[in-house]
Amino acid sequence: MDYDTIAAISTPTGEGAISIVRLSGSEAVAAADRLFQGRKTLHDVDSHTIHYGKIVDPETKKTVEEVMVSVMRKPKTFTREDVVEINCHGGLTSVNRVLELVLDQNVRLAEPGEFTKRAFLNGRIDLSQAEAVMDLIRAKTDQAMNIALNQMEGKLSHLVRNLRQQLLDILAAVEVNIDYPEYDDAEVMTNKILFEKASEVRYQIDRVLSTARQGKILREGLSTVIIGRPNVGKSSLLNQLVHESKAIVTNVPGTTRDVIEEYVNVQGVPLRLVDTAGIRDTEDLVEKIGVSRSKEILKTAELVLLLINSHEELTDEDRMLFQLIGTTPAIILLNKADLPLNTSVDEVKNLAGSNPILRTSMTDDRGLEELEQAIASLFFSNRVTENNETYVSNTRHIALLKQARSAINDAIDAADQGVPVDMTQIDIKRTWDLLGEIVGDTVSDGLINELFSKFCLGK
Amino acid sequence: MDYDTIAAISTPTGEGAISIVRLSGSEAVAAADRLFQGRKTLHDVDSHTIHYGKIVDPETKKTVEEVMVSVMRKPKTFTREDVVEINCHGGLTSVNRVLELVLDQNVRLAEPGEFTKRAFLNGRIDLSQAEAVMDLIRAKTDQAMNIALNQMEGKLSHLVRNLRQQLLDILAAVEVNIDYPEYDDAEVMTNKILFEKASEVRYQIDRVLSTARQGKILREGLSTVIIGRPNVGKSSLLNQLVHESKAIVTNVPGTTRDVIEEYVNVQGVPLRLVDTAGIRDTEDLVEKIGVSRSKEILKTAELVLLLINSHEELTDEDRMLFQLIGTTPAIILLNKADLPLNTSVDEVKNLAGSNPILRTSMTDDRGLEELEQAIASLFFSNRVTENNETYVSNTRHIALLKQARSAINDAIDAADQGVPVDMTQIDIKRTWDLLGEIVGDTVSDGLINELFSKFCLGK
Repeated sequence: MDYDTIAAISTPTGEGAISIVRLSGSEAVAAADRLFQGRKTLHDVDSHTIHYGKIVDPETKKTVEEVMVSVMRKPKTFTREDVVEINCHGGLTSVNRVLELVLDQNVRLAEPGEFTKRAFLNGRIDLSQAEAVMDLIRAKTDQAMNIALNQMEGKLSHLVRNLRQQLLDILAAVEVNIDYPEYDDAEVMTNKILFEKASEVRYQIDRVLSTARQGKILREGLSTVIIGRPNVGKSSLLNQLVHESKAIVTNVPGTTRDVIEEYVNVQGVPLRLVDTAGIRDTEDLVEKIGVSRSKEILKTAELVLLLINSHEELTDEDRMLFQLIGTTPAIILLNKADLPLNTSVDEVKNLAGSNPILRTSMTDDRGLEELEQAIASLFFSNRVTENNETYVSNTRHIALLKQARSAINDAIDAADQGVPVDMTQIDIKRTWDLLGEIVGDTVSDGLINELFSKFCLGK
Repeated sequence: MDYDTIAAISTPTGEGAISIVRLSGSEAVAAADRLFQGRKTLHDVDSHTIHYGKIVDPETKKTVEEVMVSVMRKPKTFTREDVVEINCHGGLTSVNRVLELVLDQNVRLAEPGEFTKRAFLNGRIDLSQAEAVMDLIRAKTDQAMNIALNQMEGKLSHLVRNLRQQLLDILAAVEVNIDYPEYDDAEVMTNKILFEKASEVRYQIDRVLSTARQGKILREGLSTVIIGRPNVGKSSLLNQLVHESKAIVTNVPGTTRDVIEEYVNVQGVPLRLVDTAGIRDTEDLVEKIGVSRSKEILKTAELVLLLINSHEELTDEDRMLFQLIGTTPAIILLNKADLPLNTSVDEVKNLAGSNPILRTSMTDDRGLEELEQAIASLFFSNRVTENNETYVSNTRHIALLKQARSAINDAIDAADQGVPVDMTQIDIKRTWDLLGEIVGDTVSDGLINELFSKFCLGK
């Protein structure tokens, strides 16, 4: 199919050595040619070659940038269309001016994710692979990156397509059995085959789903909140975690003073530390935002780190914080372990329930390694995360797998109870449809548009 | 000369579609080849071609990224060395992992600006052109970009080299006159020639220097402070300026809560708004930071916007703010013009001195255009900024030109006063040296290192 030609800045925004304006579509080369002054016209160059030259404003005839232009002709490109990449020197102003000139050449500004969307629409990758492209960009840890890479290389697609083939085989076998019954008890036999084969599919779905919790944490990070009375050491703990961590990413969406999230890599578990700015500023989350808002934050948290000043006796405020935790997994830190212990450990144990309790000190780094191990074991139990395993990590995929699991379960139950086979077939077909949505074979335009709109610009 | 092979991430940090790891040096291709798996080995491909493949960890044999690799062989490259660019999918994690692997291949992490430094050391560009590369990246407006582009294309270099040639000609003419005197009054004639020719050089230096103030503002932005009593509309004015502006850049150096600078493009004048975070947060700069610190900030400011609540009578605080301005250029805004005027305009005129006074209202946008015009005319008078003019904008260049101007002036004075020619020659030679520092012909290694260290990583 032939779409219009699109362009966007494909490098992150900011000051850097190189910024790229990427064009894709049948007019990409011609449009770039009207702006490019080099030794050759781009029309005449070989595919997958790079050319030094200048971008010149066709109206004022003034040079706008010194560039390297890459020409890649279809079909061996990211989008399976003609692609031109204009490598600029990297300034925000100059790359924006180059983009403006490109957009004057009958080229449209690409929507977020539109390059990847074309790769999908032109059949180069399926939907789950397209989603993995975005996951790869956003990956906060090596493990999250491995999951995304495996998915991008088509491991999940392969698994899903395999399951769908098995479901088609079941449907075919059922058809054959019903149409050409060799035995009198055709219906019974059919139900038996159906039960066995569908159970096998369910087992495989269950296996993938068993990776979902870890996969989701690795992909999205574990939403973590640090609480404790003022001056108990929250800020120091935060600094220690951030300092120790190899990969720190600070997200500042919207304006510069919006919610700030920091990612900390704890033994492969990406902790997403919530409202760290609040902690750093006031050293007191609860006091600042109030109890009811704190409860809300804690409800959405997946891990709470509660600090207690072990040099003092427990206060009512401490006890309230224990209550605030509710059922969220928590680790209790008896902090200030460098000072004499004055807290009743028995009471803390009582309040902590099954949550682990550690002795820590931020002044001499005591207990930090134990804390990291506690976090890792809390979320990865004894299971070793294998690079080769096919993880499912995307919420959309997980939801579809769960629905598919429920549909195949209905089929299995029906077969077990001897329900007429043509009824059971509907459930099998539904399972097949749901799995198809993961790879994008059975999916609406609306959903496709929505999914790609979450991509970043220029991808 | 042959340097070791270096590598760095050459795209801005952040989430984007494409990130680039750039290598430069004689081992660049071989190093990339050890990690690259594609249809061909990079060793065998033509220069300036692009190749699809994977980056594979040589130890674990695991795929780390899906990449496009560009191979550009010397001498037609940015550094005049072999250059390899590995285009990654853009995630921070994956591009960092690719860089790590590259650095395991006997490749060193590039220092900031080291690619451009090599372009300089290998003679592809001179020092002022190298500095322009960085200016281009940091350019906040089109005009700043044009200045940088002209400088990068060598316009300033050409002008400086031309001046240096004239100085050499003077020295030669003086030598000839002294060695082969055709007249008895050789000394007098020589002084006359020297006076005329040196005056011509001084005139040209003066012409370039006359662009310095504007050039510097265009390059660095005009440091601007908004002051006024609480609730007078500072925050609204700030929002209006930021909102109206085409090019907004928010710099957040260091941690996320450091000093925040916003760039606003007012009719081509880049205003660098200082401590905007403070204004947004508290609506009261002076009250927050105290009078003495305010005085300090105002002293370094190049423009003050003072807001007065024209619906109220002047207060002592208003009068104090007028005093704080001192000699810094200021524009006085009689704000809240949508409400009845209760301020004594005569007293304001008295306090404002020669500073312009405008009636404004942030609720109905009154006076905003006049404000923009006032700012533009305050700093660009009636002079139209021409793209073709050679601007000098860099503080280092301006300082050297001023020193050169002073040196040539000494020569002219000496010639005028009939000082022996061999004394005057020293001043001419000094002028020649100083101008040489601009293009880097006469400059120490220490200075070169210092200059390039201010570049961004990967450039």
